[in-house]
Amino acid sequence: MSTYGFLGLGIMGTAMATNLIQAGFDVTVWNRTNTKCAPLVELGAKQGESAAAVVAGCDITFGMVSDPEAALSLCFEKGGVLEGITEGKSYIDVSTVDPDTASTVYKAIQNKGGRYLEAPVSGSKQPAEDGTLVFLCSGDESLYSDAQEALDVMGKKSFYFPLIGQGAQMKLIINMVMGTMMTAFAEGLSLGQKVGLQPNDIIDVIAQGAINNPMFQLKGPRMTEGMFATAFPLKHMQKDMRLALLLGDAHNQPLHTSSAANNAYIRAKQNGYGEEDFSAVIKNIEK
Amino acid sequence: MSTYGFLGLGIMGTAMATNLIQAGFDVTVWNRTNTKCAPLVELGAKQGESAAAVVAGCDITFGMVSDPEAALSLCFEKGGVLEGITEGKSYIDVSTVDPDTASTVYKAIQNKGGRYLEAPVSGSKQPAEDGTLVFLCSGDESLYSDAQEALDVMGKKSFYFPLIGQGAQMKLIINMVMGTMMTAFAEGLSLGQKVGLQPNDIIDVIAQGAINNPMFQLKGPRMTEGMFATAFPLKHMQKDMRLALLLGDAHNQPLHTSSAANNAYIRAKQNGYGEEDFSAVIKNIEK
Amino acid sequence: MSTYGFLGLGIMGTAMATNLIQAGFDVTVWNRTNTKCAPLVELGAKQGESAAAVVAGCDITFGMVSDPEAALSLCFEKGGVLEGITEGKSYIDVSTVDPDTASTVYKAIQNKGGRYLEAPVSGSKQPAEDGTLVFLCSGDESLYSDAQEALDVMGKKSFYFPLIGQGAQMKLIINMVMGTMMTAFAEGLSLGQKVGLQPNDIIDVIAQGAINNPMFQLKGPRMTEGMFATAFPLKHMQKDMRLALLLGDAHNQPLHTSSAANNAYIRAKQNGYGEEDFSAVIKNIEK
Amino acid sequence: MSTYGFLGLGIMGTAMATNLIQAGFDVTVWNRTNTKCAPLVELGAKQGESAAAVVAGCDITFGMVSDPEAALSLCFEKGGVLEGITEGKSYIDVSTVDPDTASTVYKAIQNKGGRYLEAPVSGSKQPAEDGTLVFLCSGDESLYSDAQEALDVMGKKSFYFPLIGQGAQMKLIINMVMGTMMTAFAEGLSLGQKVGLQPNDIIDVIAQGAINNPMFQLKGPRMTEGMFATAFPLKHMQKDMRLALLLGDAHNQPLHTSSAANNAYIRAKQNGYGEEDFSAVIKNIEK
Repeated sequence: MSTYGFLGLGIMGTAMATNLIQAGFDVTVWNRTNTKCAPLVELGAKQGESAAAVVAGCDITFGMVSDPEAALSLCFEKGGVLEGITEGKSYIDVSTVDPDTASTVYKAIQNKGGRYLEAPVSGSKQPAEDGTLVFLCSGDESLYSDAQEALDVMGKKSFYFPLIGQGAQMKLIINMVMGTMMTAFAEGLSLGQKVGLQPNDIIDVIAQGAINNPMFQLKGPRMTEGMFATAFPLKHMQKDMRLALLLGDAHNQPLHTSSAANNAYIRAKQNGYGEEDFSAVIKNIEK
Repeated sequence: MSTYGFLGLGIMGTAMATNLIQAGFDVTVWNRTNTKCAPLVELGAKQGESAAAVVAGCDITFGMVSDPEAALSLCFEKGGVLEGITEGKSYIDVSTVDPDTASTVYKAIQNKGGRYLEAPVSGSKQPAEDGTLVFLCSGDESLYSDAQEALDVMGKKSFYFPLIGQGAQMKLIINMVMGTMMTAFAEGLSLGQKVGLQPNDIIDVIAQGAINNPMFQLKGPRMTEGMFATAFPLKHMQKDMRLALLLGDAHNQPLHTSSAANNAYIRAKQNGYGEEDFSAVIKNIEK
Repeated sequence: MSTYGFLGLGIMGTAMATNLIQAGFDVTVWNRTNTKCAPLVELGAKQGESAAAVVAGCDITFGMVSDPEAALSLCFEKGGVLEGITEGKSYIDVSTVDPDTASTVYKAIQNKGGRYLEAPVSGSKQPAEDGTLVFLCSGDESLYSDAQEALDVMGKKSFYFPLIGQGAQMKLIINMVMGTMMTAFAEGLSLGQKVGLQPNDIIDVIAQGAINNPMFQLKGPRMTEGMFATAFPLKHMQKDMRLALLLGDAHNQPLHTSSAANNAYIRAKQNGYGEEDFSAVIKNIEK
Repeated sequence: MSTYGFLGLGIMGTAMATNLIQAGFDVTVWNRTNTKCAPLVELGAKQGESAAAVVAGCDITFGMVSDPEAALSLCFEKGGVLEGITEGKSYIDVSTVDPDTASTVYKAIQNKGGRYLEAPVSGSKQPAEDGTLVFLCSGDESLYSDAQEALDVMGKKSFYFPLIGQGAQMKLIINMVMGTMMTAFAEGLSLGQKVGLQPNDIIDVIAQGAINNPMFQLKGPRMTEGMFATAFPLKHMQKDMRLALLLGDAHNQPLHTSSAANNAYIRAKQNGYGEEDFSAVIKNIEK
């Protein structure tokens, strides 16, 4: 059985590494602030000296950090992932990075004879704890295959796409559809209120039909009460929509409906709702 | 137990009346082309001489015709519904009509002392046969209550909204959200194809998350194969979106995202896809 | 030389009739509130007893009222235009009416053997006084020809389109382009301010190039000062855009850019700017 | 009187340098392909050995190259502008560059004690020959002032904006308004044709009113004939609109109308019209 490293023990990383350890895998952890390692060591993990040391000492190492900048640092800094890479070593970045970042890391690791997989996840804290994440992978296919047992422990499903960057692209496209569905829903709720229908009736009617989906049923009732506790910040949705639209621009794909939705999020940011949940876009559609 | 009339025995009406008969209700049927009555008479229905005669002879009469014009004819023509209305008689129009038509029929029936309910249905042939339609009712609330046993046989759920016309408005709003979700989905699939992702992978990834819904899973795979067997004709979706946008216009509700979607359907009509399923809108988004 | 009638002496009608009288034409005037006739009688006009009497007594009669409803009343009411129509009599409606109204009046007058021209004008008070209006005519071509001398006195240019209703359609299309240009301009000014450019610099740069036009130069400086004295009310612009979009809908013409602009005007109405000049749409684009 | 250098002798540069020489200025020219220098030397110019030599030998040097990449090369390559910069030397880049490029060159030149002005021009070949360009300048204000006599010879008007990058931003905003006006115009022409109006009548009616502008009158008649000889390539317009929209995105400025226009250009590129004039966008709006 392979040995595993895990770098980055924030909310997501801690939950994911915990699942690996509890499934009986041999796991070595590392975190920039090393106090985060203690609870996992208690569960049976070893603690690494540096990112490089973990990568050098394990067969397959996962990394989970907050954004593309952090992902680049973790790879390229002194004592970082790249230093530990030699032939036969493997690195899987489960952070959400853009296609360019994934490509940069991929080439650097390949040049040293290592294997790389970009594997951004769909799902947040709860699915991470429950082991029901979805992995959107691209890069080295043999690594995807070798890591399957670990991915199966942390997630309910994983996908492999052949070209590096496609994991990130898939995530942008899903979020673009999600963001546009949300403005369509908000327009429907807002129009309904103006003609005198109860928003909860609209949500209930939707619940009976072909367009029903968890997002409408989960967020809808809160939206009608003006409650927007942040699950996915509006400003991040807008950023993802911008990146998806630029992808469309680069491939000559007109995206009229999604562009209109993007402008709704931009207006919401302008009005100060950027830190709220992306469903707060309804506030700007209502008035 | 009330006695029931049923006027209009097309695909939908036949299925609905059949369910009433098989549930043991006392049902009298009528259709403009009276050969359509035979199978139902065989199941135990009585056959009426005219729409007026059915209305006069039953406690509650349902009407199911194809569009607002047919609904107005059925009510106002010689031998039509209105002639049979007297105090205590009730008429429930389950056709899809616009708010103005509902309002016109409502007033005419009220003037003769009768009761009226507009009750457009959500769902098509299969749900009609399975008795799983959804009724969006408004008009006379006591009639809504009295007809509940029949609605429960033909549908899985019914809603009552206090103001006449709101049944129709609810249906327009639901269809507006549906139509816009479809263009958002089509944009996502089309962008995915352009960057080299497999459309079925996109559908599968969606299946794992919060925006998953029956429409995407049912129509998505067919859309990727270019198959658009008509369940709901594109030209009808575009008509409903136009009416929903006009509702927004009348109530000062901006609808940027839905307007963009509406233009996609208009373009699809221009290119000759009006008779195909509304999911054929993807053909114009792809190129 | 023909004799002329003039019905409707509001701001526009008074200015236009004055020009006819001062050019030496034989003019008979009538207005619902007949005190409006006095100043024109002083200038040399005759005063008619009723609309019907004026039509019956003159070769060609002009009508200038505020909207389609007033135009229909003026034609069909007791003592109205239609009563005065006999073979050889001619009526030119210079009010702004929709294609359906023009068509209704056209048929009624034709049935009595008269001639009809719809001739909505482009231009408001100042051009009416200066005799520099533009007439957008359709209907009876021989009448267009016979009335040329009068049209030349009241306007600087007239157009003839062969099908009844096309005068109104032309006006809607021009206003649709105008309304969309205004939101494009407002978006440019608003974006400029956000990046730190002076709006008047933007207007000055535009003044040097191929997109320069009187509207930007006239309204731009006032828009940057937040002054929106009403020349053309925003709610009327929005109504014209709605009608133009419906024309597009009826002819399968997608109108993405104009639809986006229309939604900007709808939002502006929602925020209470309907009575201000249509350039006030910038207030909703800025925030 | 200052001495002037001129680097980059394409269509634009040759015309501009010619005007400087013919106005009696002391001009030294340089071009990568030095055969382009001969005609100007014949008119009285000196020829420089390298870009660096021209900058070192003249008080103020102009550069006119095709895009940001070329502008960066010209500045930073061996023998380039930066090598010739010392205290007291001045460089004015009249190429169209983005704000970031302008800023990069600005800092590099400032670090060596030189002065820099970004001065993108509005206007193409004809205005360059006629000396009627418009300069959109930002950077060193004293240089703007010192170069005024030369700018006056080559252009009819120049603007100064205080922050580096604002010249480029102004140009993007103007082009965004231009591009959106063009799609609005194309929608009007296309709708007109569908209802049976002659496009040239629409252009003629516009000519009489407040929205008339040289672009509509120059390009309109050609558009109705399907002729799109390239003055400004559609793909460049789309690129400028993308950059303007990203500027809006960065400043939280929703741009609904301009986004819709941008998608029209993207579709036109998708259909192979990228190299034609940007007015060819009408081909995708018509069908």
